[in-house]
Amino acid sequence: MKLSGGVEWALHCCVVLTTATEPVPAARLAELHDVSGSYLAKQLQALSHAGLVTSVQGKAGGYVLTRAPELITILEVVAAVDGAQPAFVCTEIRQRGPLATPSAACTQPCPIARAMAGADAAWRAALQAISIADLARGVEQDYGPTALGGIRAWLSGPNDSDTTTVGQG
Amino acid sequence: MKLSGGVEWALHCCVVLTTATEPVPAARLAELHDVSGSYLAKQLQALSHAGLVTSVQGKAGGYVLTRAPELITILEVVAAVDGAQPAFVCTEIRQRGPLATPSAACTQPCPIARAMAGADAAWRAALQAISIADLARGVEQDYGPTALGGIRAWLSGPNDSDTTTVGQG
Repeated sequence: MKLSGGVEWALHCCVVLTTATEPVPAARLAELHDVSGSYLAKQLQALSHAGLVTSVQGKAGGYVLTRAPELITILEVVAAVDGAQPAFVCTEIRQRGPLATPSAACTQPCPIARAMAGADAAWRAALQAISIADLARGVEQDYGPTALGGIRAWLSGPNDSDTTTVGQG
Repeated sequence: MKLSGGVEWALHCCVVLTTATEPVPAARLAELHDVSGSYLAKQLQALSHAGLVTSVQGKAGGYVLTRAPELITILEVVAAVDGAQPAFVCTEIRQRGPLATPSAACTQPCPIARAMAGADAAWRAALQAISIADLARGVEQDYGPTALGGIRAWLSGPNDSDTTTVGQG
């Protein structure tokens, strides 16, 4: 079981967008994260399709969050990029073979499907309990109050970056 | 995010094995579930590799659970078939780009990785809280005390099935 790698990029973009005072072009987000613009554009389009960001057109255009970051949960970002389907899909094995349960008797999910659905619900509840604003607060707690401010300043700076590149991962 | 389809088959096999009084050949489990023997053998081998079932050799050979079903959790079966890696893998995006956090400052996972790990832990805890014995009890609660008894009787019956096939899914 593996989440799409795009989830991580999309979450980072959302946290960055909480700091922006103006729309941020996809190319600028790609430059900040040192990642292919076309790859990041795909994740931003998924966020846009889910209504979490919107693309402002024009010379000063770019992406903005559509809601306050307190009102966007991690679960929404995950579902936007990776889809909302549960990890476990019941194929009704109980209805197969010589001892098949008749479909009329299958009025509720079987114990296996119920157990897997319970775990899925626990996972979703954990992701729904944390907002993009919580993540941004976590960044400030980890790296100090200047961390997001530094990103804000960089986003407002010249497009042809003259900043020093440090510690590439 | 999608679990391997083998998880569902493996869980059904484990529940069936709780009822067996003798080792059950893979072909017999495949016949009971109306599924390809080679496909089911792959899941049984994964369970065997994880030490959850063992293959008894010989004329009356087949698969048995290695432990009491109370001592085998759903999580162990899922990990055996689908792997134990978390769904979200952090690629340290914070260490990229012109504002990269130096690796020396990355002594703990970032807020995004922590949030995703928390959800993963909730999912695992839910699957660890339910045993194969719990699933078997669930089957008895859903379909009555004769359901597992019927499987036990079928497993002990002739290999060339002369039972009536009902309600194929």
